[in-house]
Amino acid sequence: MKVEPRTLPGFMELLPEDQILFNDMKQKIQNSYEKFGFLPLDTPIIEMSEVLLAKAGGETEKQIYRFEKGDNDLSLRFDLTVPLAKYVTEHYNDLSFPFKRYQIGKVYRGERPQKGRFREFYQCDVDIIGDGELSIINDAEMVSVIYTTIKELGFEDFTICINNRKILNGLFQEINQESLSVDIMRIIDKLEKIGKDNVIESLKDLQIPEKAIEQIMSFIQIKGETNEKLQLLKDYEFKNELINEGIEELEQVIKFVRALGVPDKNFKVDLTIARGLDYYTGTVYETFLNDYREIGSVCSGGRYDNLAEFYTDKKLPGVGVSIGLTRLFYKLNELNAIKLSQKSVAKVLVTPMQDEMQTALVVGTALRKANIPTQIYLENKKIKAKFKYADRLKIPYVITIGETEVQNNTVALKNMETGEQKTLSIEDAITILK
Amino acid sequence: MKVEPRTLPGFMELLPEDQILFNDMKQKIQNSYEKFGFLPLDTPIIEMSEVLLAKAGGETEKQIYRFEKGDNDLSLRFDLTVPLAKYVTEHYNDLSFPFKRYQIGKVYRGERPQKGRFREFYQCDVDIIGDGELSIINDAEMVSVIYTTIKELGFEDFTICINNRKILNGLFQEINQESLSVDIMRIIDKLEKIGKDNVIESLKDLQIPEKAIEQIMSFIQIKGETNEKLQLLKDYEFKNELINEGIEELEQVIKFVRALGVPDKNFKVDLTIARGLDYYTGTVYETFLNDYREIGSVCSGGRYDNLAEFYTDKKLPGVGVSIGLTRLFYKLNELNAIKLSQKSVAKVLVTPMQDEMQTALVVGTALRKANIPTQIYLENKKIKAKFKYADRLKIPYVITIGETEVQNNTVALKNMETGEQKTLSIEDAITILK
Repeated sequence: MKVEPRTLPGFMELLPEDQILFNDMKQKIQNSYEKFGFLPLDTPIIEMSEVLLAKAGGETEKQIYRFEKGDNDLSLRFDLTVPLAKYVTEHYNDLSFPFKRYQIGKVYRGERPQKGRFREFYQCDVDIIGDGELSIINDAEMVSVIYTTIKELGFEDFTICINNRKILNGLFQEINQESLSVDIMRIIDKLEKIGKDNVIESLKDLQIPEKAIEQIMSFIQIKGETNEKLQLLKDYEFKNELINEGIEELEQVIKFVRALGVPDKNFKVDLTIARGLDYYTGTVYETFLNDYREIGSVCSGGRYDNLAEFYTDKKLPGVGVSIGLTRLFYKLNELNAIKLSQKSVAKVLVTPMQDEMQTALVVGTALRKANIPTQIYLENKKIKAKFKYADRLKIPYVITIGETEVQNNTVALKNMETGEQKTLSIEDAITILK
Repeated sequence: MKVEPRTLPGFMELLPEDQILFNDMKQKIQNSYEKFGFLPLDTPIIEMSEVLLAKAGGETEKQIYRFEKGDNDLSLRFDLTVPLAKYVTEHYNDLSFPFKRYQIGKVYRGERPQKGRFREFYQCDVDIIGDGELSIINDAEMVSVIYTTIKELGFEDFTICINNRKILNGLFQEINQESLSVDIMRIIDKLEKIGKDNVIESLKDLQIPEKAIEQIMSFIQIKGETNEKLQLLKDYEFKNELINEGIEELEQVIKFVRALGVPDKNFKVDLTIARGLDYYTGTVYETFLNDYREIGSVCSGGRYDNLAEFYTDKKLPGVGVSIGLTRLFYKLNELNAIKLSQKSVAKVLVTPMQDEMQTALVVGTALRKANIPTQIYLENKKIKAKFKYADRLKIPYVITIGETEVQNNTVALKNMETGEQKTLSIEDAITILK
């Protein structure tokens, strides 16, 4: 009796060619994060439920993979932020602040499986954590991180939307709707998705007076270029301290974002961006690929006052962003929009014509020593089958070694794309392949 | 009420400095695997228990992390071989054979926690899978993979021990102990660990006649250089087909290993190497760091006739090796024997002396554009605190920017190791840092 080999629904498992593209994206994100000096972290996937769920509730708790092993109540991590909070508190004395870390790893959420939704998926997080305080310039640096990373992934036409929650929260104070601020933000965050009229309807459902709704709507729809918007915000001449703090921070962030070389065409102030999480307290970000708006935000995050309040009294403010790589890869692949071109691991397939295996092994070893990823075809097959193999694996070059090549100490190098073939010394072949 | 943030026992969680070393080892292993053209794979950590445990039993089953979620009986993978078997069977029609893949990922075993034993650990696997058949030359290539990978990790003095199980199995046929072959192999595999006398005692416990024990012992202790051993084996002039097949294969493997440029000093024939798994059917490998024998084998594996017999009738022979990275890192770190030197992510810390933040941001961005991992110090602290920060993070260079530097469009570059400081143009600083 054979068992049928199946993969669970909601779990991505790629064929090699797609896996190469996926890994390439992952590597480029990592390279970009490291370019900013973020330190790597790799926390366990399993944690004590008590620790992991210290803060959770509602949807998160229902989706969690939770189980007992021996006497332990265990859970699989559902994001990389809670493990970071745990890590920073636990290792506080051994860390240097500001603590800049990135983590790229799998997280688990038992959502109802549906197309493009995954139960196991990669998050790629960067955060900067301060000890007691953290300069606003970090909020600008985060925009530079997003900019550099999305560029590294091959995109040019994208917009990083920046807002500051203090502005919205201040506004809600002004119009006496502070108690509803989380709900209101959840609604206006959907402005683009559900449209103006539906936002107004939803706000009415919250029993917010029409006058207040008008104020909210006119405020979040302020138009203009970045500098104009900032000026319009200041022109309101609010008395509310929180709003003014938010506007001041936003202005600072924009100033430093420009100093960090992020072009104006790649960011904008967007007062509707609220991020549906009550976790954020200041700057918030969302990022859209303008040719693929339907994907939604590809990189989001923001500033928070306190990373680890469930574990410690220490004040640990931070700012960070995250890329949901599994979903992003899935969507881009579906849209045929992946901007990378790596297709194979091996750059060359080395194969004997007939009985020249010894020489093929020597040549293959020489190429590998020169750091050229090389596969040697070791099976006893017809030459046609070997070329077909290289073709299917999209290996760009094939080196064949026949009697003549052994005698002359040369190799025959074929470019699989152009079909061009040359007889060369091994050294010259290495130069071409490098 | 605060929750105490704790990490589960048996789960490795490193401080950044160690994590950098760990990642460096992982990256070097990956680079080495890719140099041979192995394709990347990334299978889910959670699988259906029915699929994952199709073959398991005994110890493995007891150690498994198994739980229910909704109606599903799920388990965490305990190795990367079963997922490979699943993958190859499931995607058979989409793969090209020989299928060469590597997978580096976490696996889970709920062992009793003890020092140096982990419940979550990385395995780094490479395997070559044939469709119906697979040339013996692949067994030699695997030795070249081990050799290249261990060298890449910075070691020179190591020995890859090679054996062929057909030789041992044939011998057990010869002495009429075939039914005990798995048990005998398990015992002689421990020869180095427990010594000759204990091996003999254990064999006696199996009720094996003294004459047979003598034959086993003299056989597995054949001495000499590789070629002498091969000759001695042939001199026995066995009539047993299996032994002769094993000797013939071993001889072939050694021949091709040499063609692949693996020096004789880094491998040897060792007839005691049996690998305690009845899974292997031909060539087997273990690898020892000669200065750190106490770690045990750091890279092991072998040839198997049939990868996926629990899922399919197709014959899928393969050969592969694995590195248990988490334990290896732990042991090497404990012995202060890690041969890599990367200590920080950022190569340089850029910091304003006082109010030169704008320029610092511009300079930092220029360095990052030149692909130099750069951290900009953004907090408002005394210059001494900034240097201390660079020191603690082991960042090798610090660039300071003061009034003079802003005026002259220069930077002050300090080498943190030598203490030497130079005033340079940004371009010259980039050249030095590259």
